[in-house]
Amino acid sequence: MRRSTASVPELVERARSGDPRAVARLISLVEDASPLLREVMAGLAPYTGNAQVVGITGSPGVGKSTSTSALVGELRRAGKRVGVLAVDPSSPFSGGALLGDRIRMQEHALDRDVYIRSMASRGHLGGLSWSTPQALRVLDAAGCDVILVETVGVGQSEVEIAGLADTTLVLLAPGMGDGVQAAKAGILEIGDVYVVNKADRDGAEQVRRELRTMISLADRPEGSWRPPIVLTVAQAGQGVDEVAAAIDEHRAWMESAGELDRRRVKRARDEVETIAVTALRARWGDVHERSELDDLAEQVVAGKTDPYRAADALLDAFTELDAARP
Amino acid sequence: MRRSTASVPELVERARSGDPRAVARLISLVEDASPLLREVMAGLAPYTGNAQVVGITGSPGVGKSTSTSALVGELRRAGKRVGVLAVDPSSPFSGGALLGDRIRMQEHALDRDVYIRSMASRGHLGGLSWSTPQALRVLDAAGCDVILVETVGVGQSEVEIAGLADTTLVLLAPGMGDGVQAAKAGILEIGDVYVVNKADRDGAEQVRRELRTMISLADRPEGSWRPPIVLTVAQAGQGVDEVAAAIDEHRAWMESAGELDRRRVKRARDEVETIAVTALRARWGDVHERSELDDLAEQVVAGKTDPYRAADALLDAFTELDAARP
Repeated sequence: MRRSTASVPELVERARSGDPRAVARLISLVEDASPLLREVMAGLAPYTGNAQVVGITGSPGVGKSTSTSALVGELRRAGKRVGVLAVDPSSPFSGGALLGDRIRMQEHALDRDVYIRSMASRGHLGGLSWSTPQALRVLDAAGCDVILVETVGVGQSEVEIAGLADTTLVLLAPGMGDGVQAAKAGILEIGDVYVVNKADRDGAEQVRRELRTMISLADRPEGSWRPPIVLTVAQAGQGVDEVAAAIDEHRAWMESAGELDRRRVKRARDEVETIAVTALRARWGDVHERSELDDLAEQVVAGKTDPYRAADALLDAFTELDAARP
Repeated sequence: MRRSTASVPELVERARSGDPRAVARLISLVEDASPLLREVMAGLAPYTGNAQVVGITGSPGVGKSTSTSALVGELRRAGKRVGVLAVDPSSPFSGGALLGDRIRMQEHALDRDVYIRSMASRGHLGGLSWSTPQALRVLDAAGCDVILVETVGVGQSEVEIAGLADTTLVLLAPGMGDGVQAAKAGILEIGDVYVVNKADRDGAEQVRRELRTMISLADRPEGSWRPPIVLTVAQAGQGVDEVAAAIDEHRAWMESAGELDRRRVKRARDEVETIAVTALRARWGDVHERSELDDLAEQVVAGKTDPYRAADALLDAFTELDAARP
């Protein structure tokens, strides 16, 4: 098992110098919640902050994978190092990630400056895996200039990706009732760049018009970003250069407006809070053989207390316990 | 404003004696997160634990509202006091709950032993409102024997309802591709009773057969509940008595197997934990003008620390702060 002999600092060093196997190994360590996870995160921290994270979302059938692949080509031509995280729906039966995206991406498979990784999603609602932020840190530290996160366009993943990304691309296509769908799903609030793919088909102009109207109706403070709409035929590579340019412009705007830092601080805040809450839950669950929380829950069921007083008692117990530790 | 003059103990007393206006007022207090919320919960606690909470879920178009209404009639004929919480999708624009279900329920509107309430859902994914468990406590304390919670059959609400309910009814109908859909959405893991509605239509038998096969394939320990499949034509009232009987049988089984207590303790546990975590987040967010969490997030963005060490620091700060309080 040669792969387990490398230490975390070695792996980080190799990942930074562009070794795809070290990158893959580090992502596996975070995905598997390895005991080394904390060491990996600590080792990566000094090298993060360069990559622009670009979320790509849209309904099934709009051409997300084709667009992602075309965009990778465009970014590579501009000399950028590119990471791709494809968040796949996991089967409720197997729990495994599909390989479809990796296969569609194979034209980039031999390019050392492109890292492609499929990650499982969190069940049938398509939520992102808890380890997505950590995997982004690995790719960031490995020197990626842009990381594309392609999500399944269903359920909560499209909202979650907007929370993780510096720039969110929303893909639409004509003939899918997307105008209405977009409004419904609230994606008009999350897009930084809108792409109308399959623009050689009837109805593309209408989708653009509808989008433009909706964007113009939105209430925007002075000096804020106005999402551009780009028409593409990703299959033929048309318009993809404009998408890449829009992504660049969005980054430039974010930097000049202080928005990049704001988004990243907000994201780090959420991440730190989630880790802290998860740690707390674990402590509540197993500090004793039979936990305080179990006792409190039974008292609630018996009508001896209510959930709010029980929550107070839980927090008090935790604080006392913690303060008593050496 | 006469309605605001009654004290919480008075409202609880009136709700227990069957005053629908007191019930409505208490639910409004919990929905609005009134400053009186804690007092309401404490006042209700001694009177909870009687009601059987029955979740009703299924895809749009299977006839959830018609089935709920027919079931209310059936339960009333058996002399039971019934509560109905209809969780409606809120419009992303208005945020308000639709009145559709209330209108469809109007045949029961004058019955003092039926309480009907529409609640807003948590946005386009159809999650249950955070106040659903509290509203259930109000109806429980008001003496309801059965509380039907009708959810929109999309997104996470169907999983959430299974977490809140003692008994989960999954509705299907022929001709909706529900066989496949059911497997996809994982609803086969949550149903305690399956109802094939619109059973007078072609394909009902096939839906039953598919369900039966899937249920028989599931791995079940000795002595566990085997979900029955009931065919109904809710519009004509056919088979609804069998649904009511299946609900009764499920309760009897849960009581004999200790499952009712297990589910309720688990539910109370989740509820207490959620309240405690929410309280913690509030404290982290606003203990100081500029919070510890903000500082930590900025250090993460700057690469000076990683999210895990930052989470440790956050928990330490909270514990010290708390221990230092008088």
